Order: sequence, then structure tokens, then C-alpha cells
Amino acid sequence: MNKYPVTFELLHVCKQTGARLGRVTTPHGSFMTPAFMPVGTQATVKGMTPDEVKSMGAGIILSNTYHLWMRPGSELVARAGGLHKFMNWDRAILTDSGGFQVFSLATPKDIVEEGVHFRSHIDGSKQFLTPEKSMKIQNDLGSDIIMAFDECCPYPSTHEYAARSQARTTRWLERCINSHKNPDTQGLFGIIQGSMYEDLRRESAAAITSFDLPGYAIGGISVGEPAELFYKVLDWTAPLMPEDKPRYLMGVGTPDYLIEGAVSGIDMFDCVLPTRLGRHGTILTNKGRMIVRDKRHEEDFGPMEEGCSCYACRNYSAAYIRHLFKANEILGMRLATWHNIHFLLHLMEQVREAIAADCLGDFRDEFFAKYEGARRNG
Amino acid sequence: MNKYPVTFELLHVCKQTGARLGRVTTPHGSFMTPAFMPVGTQATVKGMTPDEVKSMGAGIILSNTYHLWMRPGSELVARAGGLHKFMNWDRAILTDSGGFQVFSLATPKDIVEEGVHFRSHIDGSKQFLTPEKSMKIQNDLGSDIIMAFDECCPYPSTHEYAARSQARTTRWLERCINSHKNPDTQGLFGIIQGSMYEDLRRESAAAITSFDLPGYAIGGISVGEPAELFYKVLDWTAPLMPEDKPRYLMGVGTPDYLIEGAVSGIDMFDCVLPTRLGRHGTILTNKGRMIVRDKRHEEDFGPMEEGCSCYACRNYSAAYIRHLFKANEILGMRLATWHNIHFLLHLMEQVREAIAADCLGDFRDEFFAKYEGARRNG
Repeated sequence: MNKYPVTFELLHVCKQTGARLGRVTTPHGSFMTPAFMPVGTQATVKGMTPDEVKSMGAGIILSNTYHLWMRPGSELVARAGGLHKFMNWDRAILTDSGGFQVFSLATPKDIVEEGVHFRSHIDGSKQFLTPEKSMKIQNDLGSDIIMAFDECCPYPSTHEYAARSQARTTRWLERCINSHKNPDTQGLFGIIQGSMYEDLRRESAAAITSFDLPGYAIGGISVGEPAELFYKVLDWTAPLMPEDKPRYLMGVGTPDYLIEGAVSGIDMFDCVLPTRLGRHGTILTNKGRMIVRDKRHEEDFGPMEEGCSCYACRNYSAAYIRHLFKANEILGMRLATWHNIHFLLHLMEQVREAIAADCLGDFRDEFFAKYEGARRNG
Repeated sequence: MNKYPVTFELLHVCKQTGARLGRVTTPHGSFMTPAFMPVGTQATVKGMTPDEVKSMGAGIILSNTYHLWMRPGSELVARAGGLHKFMNWDRAILTDSGGFQVFSLATPKDIVEEGVHFRSHIDGSKQFLTPEKSMKIQNDLGSDIIMAFDECCPYPSTHEYAARSQARTTRWLERCINSHKNPDTQGLFGIIQGSMYEDLRRESAAAITSFDLPGYAIGGISVGEPAELFYKVLDWTAPLMPEDKPRYLMGVGTPDYLIEGAVSGIDMFDCVLPTRLGRHGTILTNKGRMIVRDKRHEEDFGPMEEGCSCYACRNYSAAYIRHLFKANEILGMRLATWHNIHFLLHLMEQVREAIAADCLGDFRDEFFAKYEGARRNG
């Protein structure tokens, strides 16, 4: 059974929604699902210490292969004892393949069967990323979950382009499997692509899940398409994923998508949203977003979000945090980021509790009654 | 005896050096002296939470009247419940008078008997700071120790200018005393000026200490003069200060000056040095300064300073912190600042232990044997 270093237990299915409560176990501990993974692009969750991220209950974070490859270099990280030791994080780490960043730096003609040509965003130097190279870097980093090198099609893409791309993603997956050096300590997840086309999503899901892997992901959505289309692709794809493996919806992190994703049977999510918004003074709340820099919070001596149990809301007023942002003080970014990560981790806790109690549908109704977001129709 | 809200107990005098071990008690707790006060200019010690600063043992911080007056405004802070509540710091706070910042924005002709005309560094608006205004702002802030409004003469200043200036500083002190609204809850310290002239220092010390105040400070040194001159002024002035009141040497924070200041009988110090250096990736160590960004730390997988017990050195390598600085990550600034504040607070702990053991002279010898700094001659 446990032939993979990353395993999944399905603990309960919500009778109201079909959402899944589960547990993923990795070489660096277990975490409950559905789970939100804070993003630590450059081997740090921006502004936070690992201890702070742990204190909020995160069991896994995501780090970016492309960024670490460019700086400080994956071989340096390997010599430091791997990414966990380098950044002082002893829980699970998932790394992406580097593809998402590289494709944003490349043009279509740079993408060849062998891999992708691009120029470094740091020094403009010519680089070439292939499935084998992505595996080598992620093997160096030593993350618990590593992602297959895939192409995340831009939105919109033609059917013809998306078809060619997803077929190549499948061939690249096979090369990833064949070149992955640490299958006993790092679990490789495959990624289903196919842009916004149902037939391609079916084709990709069949092809990708034909490889026996410890987990599978949905890539290529939440890339700028309308919410309606996002939900369509989610509805087509999620049911095609194996029940006994974790299902990861890549790059998704708005509260509405997290809840709807859980309803669709997704187990893992990641997004830069809480850290990025926090650095710019925007706060996630149960009512929607709040801009703490706004003049109207000048004398708002209560917490940013009433009733919130995060460190920032327990100890500081909105007025103080607004002052910190106006004065360009680092602590403002820290406290806003702290709140936002706590908000999403706490949201997922509530989602897991609702699944266990078979009432995620009710939770969703209550959530959207307060929150302005993209609830799925019907 | 305890007619003032801020009191001083002289606990021991070092037999080797004459340095003083003491305790200052304020409405927000006591702290042992000699003490270093981390600076929280804009109601935050840059990059740190109050909890972090407390965890390093700081019993008092300094905050800047000028900055808080300009932004967010002292009346807003008063409505928030005072500076302690606004910034979530429940230990002692000392505020300066605003003079130091204002004089750097003013020209000599802007300084009149009534006060100082200057333009805000934020919006260029015309402002006028007087002794009464400085007291009003500091009364609004509610800091435990408030400083008299004085002129810190630039270096060099002529004897004539310095004489006029220190005489005015004495007249301003009287106006501060007369306009201070909260003498029962906030202790006002007077400041001895007189630039680099022995006769003026004597004159100022006699005049300032003729007012019965809970503490006195030496201002106007460590403003760019050579170390030799700094030590001369210190040697002239410190012995003229009352033995039963805390003696505060303003703006001093390099390790060498802190040790030599303690030897001269100084009890309190403040400086932006640890936070400012930290934000730029320069580390204070027992050997001198270390630039953690340097290429030579690229694969330095040990701590920034071997044997250091600070959070940064216990948990992260110099190589990782270098990576954070190269990648412009906030955590790099946080960890370097953390180390530097810890370094100075820990240095003062060692100084206090050495005074208690009557061996501060030996400690000084050992310190300067490793450290490249401005040891006093003889």
C-alpha cells in the first residue's frame, strides 16, 4: 500500500456536498485536508518566520522551483542540507515545477518538445528548462511533494494549441517519472491540463491518471477566465481524479474558490493572495476585502476584523496598522500578512469541521450570505 | 522621596571602574541599568513586534516625538489611549523632545527665543515647535520619560553660538517644567548641552541640574565629532550629574561607546544603530561589523555569529540570511535586526554583570581585545 512517500487517507465525505475530509502524510508530517498551502516563493513566506506560519496551523507550504533555481541555486540549497533545513521549516513542502514562471517569460516559439527556452528575470541570461531539469532541481531541494513539469496554457488558448500542449504535458510527465531520482522520499504529482475544453480535460485526465502517482493536480484554471468557466472546468475535471489520491487545485486561494473547490472534492490549494494582498494593506475578511490604509480606518481603534483570533487582530487596532502602512513600516505588512494567512487557514479549518459534520452546504450558504464573491450557480 | 513618577536606585558601583549598576522604576515597570533603549521612531521598533523586543529583555524603548506629531498626530494617539496602548507595548517608553529632528530641518535663522520654525518632511507644511508644544505632544503620547526641548548644536559650532544655545536650552527647560501637565505620571529629564566646550558644559550642567528633576541627559555629543572629543566631553560632564538620578547619554549605541559610557557612570543609552544596520544587512558582532550580504557568506551554513543565542543565530544560517537579502525578502531585515538588538541588549547584560562583580575593567579589556572600535585612551 504505502509504496509512495506521500499517502492519502479519505476520512469522511460530506453528505450534503460530497466534499472530502482527508489526511495527507509526508516525510515531514501529516496535514488535514482540504488544506490551504501558504506560498514561500523564495524559501520564505514573505514577511513571516516559519514559527509564525506554524503557529497558525499550516502543515505544508509551497515554494517555487524557478525562483530557487535562479537564486540561490538548487545545488546550494542541497549543500545546505535541503530546503527544509535551509529555511528552517520542518513540516511538509510542495514545490512547483518551475513551468508556470518560465512560461510567463517565454514566447510560444520558445516551447519545443525538449523543453522551454527563456531568459532569467534576474540577469537576462539564457536558460533552458526541461522535465529532467525540473526533476533535478526539485530533487536537490528535497521537497516532500514535487510537481511534474507541465505547460499551463494561457487563457484564452485555441483548441488546437491546448490539445497539442496537453498531449506534450503527458509526454513530459513520463519523462519526469523516468528522471525522478528520489521516488522513495519525494512524491511526484501529475498535472491535468486541457485549457477550457471539456474533451481535452477528459483526455488529459485519462492520460495523466493512467500513471500511478501519489497525487494529481488540476492546472491551467484560475488563470484569468470568468468564474463561470472556472467552475465548469472544475466540475468536468475533479470527478475524473482518483478517489484514493489527493487532488490539488493549483494557484487557487480566494475564499469563494476555496469553499467551492472543497465542495467539488478538492483537497489541496495554494495561492500568493494572502501574502500579496497583505503586503499592500488589503485584508481578507468574512465580508470581503478591506483596505486598511483607507482614511476611514484612521480612528478605527478596534481590530481589523471583529472576532478574529489572529495575532494582529488580538493585539493591534486597525488605526495602528493603518498608521504603519502610511509610515511605510514593515510591521504593517507583517500584521496584514499574518491576518490574511490566518484567515485562509482558519477558513479551511471551518470547512473541514463542516465536512465532518456533513453540513458544508450550510456553511457555504452562511459564508456567501456575508461575503461578496463568486458563488457557483445552482 | 518618591515624589517623581520615575525613580532611580543606585545598587552598586564597580570598584574597578566606578560604573553604576542601578534600577529605574517607571509607571510601566522597572529596568536595570546601564540600559540600552531600542528605538521605535514611528511607534514601532522597525521590523519587530513588541513581543519580540520584550523577548530579548528590553525594559524600555524610545519613540520620536517629531515623527509621531507629524504622523499619525499626537492627539490621535491620545484618543487611542496613549502610545503604550496604540503600539501594544506595556513596558516603559521614553520620548525625545522632537528637537533633534526639527533642528535638522531648520536653519539657524529659524531658531528664535520662542521656538523653532521648520517645514514638515512629509508635506512641506510650515510648523513651529516650542517647549510648550513639545510638552503638549509628549503629554498626549503618555510616555513614561519625556525629554526637555533643547537645541542639539551641530558639530562643529563656535563657542559663541554654543554659549547662546545652551543658555536658551536652560530657559526652554524652565518653560518645559512650567507647561508639563502630567508631572505625577511622566518624568521630565533635562538635557545638558554646551557643544565641545568644557566651560559651557560646566555652565550647562550647573544650570540644568539646578532644577530638581527625576533624571538628566547629556545631549549634543556623538554628533560627528572624533572619538577623542566625545570622550573628553563625557569625562567633563558625567561627574557633574547628580549621583541619585539616572544619567542618559543621548543617541549613543555603538558597542565601544556603550561600554565606555558605562565606565563613565552613564545609566541609559539609545540609538537607531542596531535597527538601521540590520535593515541594510550589517551585523554587530563581538569582532566588529559583518556584512551578511557579502559573497563570502554565500555558503556559510553556520550562524551569523558563532555562539550567539539570538533567535536568528539559533535558527538560520548566514547563507540563508544572505539569500534573503539578495532576494529582497523582509525576513532578512527582520533576522538581522533581531540579532543586532539582541547583541546590544546582551552586551548591556554582560556590562551589568561585570559591574556587579566589580570587574567591568576586565570585561572592557577582553571586549576590546577582539573588537575593532574606539577605545578610550589610558
